Amino acid sequence: VDDRLHSWRPGRTRDAILAFLDAARAVPIEERVACLDNDGTMWCERPRYIQLAFFIDALRQAVRHKPELAKTKEFAAVLGQDRDQLEQLGLARVALALASLFEDQTPEEFVDVVRDFMATAHHDELDRPMNELTYLPMVELIDELRALDFTVSITTGGGAEFVRAISRRLYGVPPELVVGTRVAYRLEQDSQGAPVLKRTAKLDGEVDEGAAKVAGIQSHLGRRPIVAAGNTAGDREMLEWAVGGDQPGLALLVNHDDGEREYAYQGKSASLKEQRPITEIAADEGWTVVSMKDDWTQIFA
Amino acid sequence: VDDRLHSWRPGRTRDAILAFLDAARAVPIEERVACLDNDGTMWCERPRYIQLAFFIDALRQAVRHKPELAKTKEFAAVLGQDRDQLEQLGLARVALALASLFEDQTPEEFVDVVRDFMATAHHDELDRPMNELTYLPMVELIDELRALDFTVSITTGGGAEFVRAISRRLYGVPPELVVGTRVAYRLEQDSQGAPVLKRTAKLDGEVDEGAAKVAGIQSHLGRRPIVAAGNTAGDREMLEWAVGGDQPGLALLVNHDDGEREYAYQGKSASLKEQRPITEIAADEGWTVVSMKDDWTQIFA
Repeated sequence: VDDRLHSWRPGRTRDAILAFLDAARAVPIEERVACLDNDGTMWCERPRYIQLAFFIDALRQAVRHKPELAKTKEFAAVLGQDRDQLEQLGLARVALALASLFEDQTPEEFVDVVRDFMATAHHDELDRPMNELTYLPMVELIDELRALDFTVSITTGGGAEFVRAISRRLYGVPPELVVGTRVAYRLEQDSQGAPVLKRTAKLDGEVDEGAAKVAGIQSHLGRRPIVAAGNTAGDREMLEWAVGGDQPGLALLVNHDDGEREYAYQGKSASLKEQRPITEIAADEGWTVVSMKDDWTQIFA
Repeated sequence: VDDRLHSWRPGRTRDAILAFLDAARAVPIEERVACLDNDGTMWCERPRYIQLAFFIDALRQAVRHKPELAKTKEFAAVLGQDRDQLEQLGLARVALALASLFEDQTPEEFVDVVRDFMATAHHDELDRPMNELTYLPMVELIDELRALDFTVSITTGGGAEFVRAISRRLYGVPPELVVGTRVAYRLEQDSQGAPVLKRTAKLDGEVDEGAAKVAGIQSHLGRRPIVAAGNTAGDREMLEWAVGGDQPGLALLVNHDDGEREYAYQGKSASLKEQRPITEIAADEGWTVVSMKDDWTQIFA
């Protein structure tokens, strides 16, 4: 009995992954790189991104001290959870506004705020701690990749530093292997002349989605992945790139078709022109589609 | 007998490093991060940066095909090895011009070009292959850091992708742990519609020196180092930052005082306002100054 990928139901999807893992043994270890999207691929992103829940929490605290904040267009949309308005403003602009809440924090202070939030935050609809929203089958996949000496990276459209604060605990992924949207830093001196690095309210580069995700991986990891997993059209370029090289590749598309145990929706991305369902694109591209309903015996640990 | 740091002569410098290594055992492994500058710290940078020698080689080949290239101001300065003119134009502008030589190459093609150059290039003054210009005592230091589970990063003002092409072979450092100046990429499609990532002639962000080096480390590694090594004022902020935290820290300043076996010069950086000798700054800051002449029994392997 093959006890790998324990929470994956026997069938075509699991077979395809196992066949790839076998084929990967022939790939030089330096080229064994896996890039896994985070929101909706490694953990739950509904009813809203966990990072957005974190931002809303921080925004509410900020508004308590400074009520006029609630009137800015971006914050009003976030507090009102106005999806149309958020989409109209665009992810980049909203992210920028939210980043301003943490301006002047040191990276270490920001990490503490994230960890404090995650330690107590609760997902009401699923009635689970936010800390326990990772998909067990995907964590098992990481285990198998790591057993083959893959370099496993989380590549997220979300904030790199947000994910880094928790990536080691959730996935065993160290901060330098998280590729994401970056905030710019400013180096200052304290009253004793010691250097202090502080967050600004500006992004350093683009939001890490679509083609920018591919460029971001190369810039950060210096290598092309042969495994990519995603769930929205914002992952499309990364998936195409992972299977477009000379080596055997694996492109996994997590399909949210389990309204019972999680959510049923078609992954789309706010920043996208392509509005076809991502599962249609997956079929055209020959990606391995993961049905959460049929392929996973268990979703959460 | 303590056989660590074999090529380090017994004395104050070696003792200081060994004392730090002992103290580091009490630091949580997640915080054991070392950032080592490359040019002049890990390998020889005279009479010119090895990357500059690589660029000159590529430029000469390009000029053979397209002679008018030699007339542009930046290329004329590089080909003439006109230090004053190069300093006046500024590192960023010259780097940008040189990056244009590799425009439209894929990252893999660029890596091949670097490796081809390094396989045959020779350092005439020292009469050694370019591949054998790393400082043996510094490689021994990496070994000791790694024995303590340090995350060891090369943090260079030079091109990240240039150093990544050789960092694993020279230092055992994988590409994702090289932090340096980044070129921007552009994602295209080939005639079959497959994605192809190509280098542009633009930088992505700043040249990785001074304060930008500190911000670059945080953005890339997501952690603050407790060990930093450098040799020019462009490393100053990184060294201050490494020893400015709550944990025990080690700031190493490699002093090029060995005109017999290597070169005797005071490390300075083109992009610097501070024109005091870096060894004076080191004394003020309490950094550990490494005398190549007195502290190293052997320089190259």
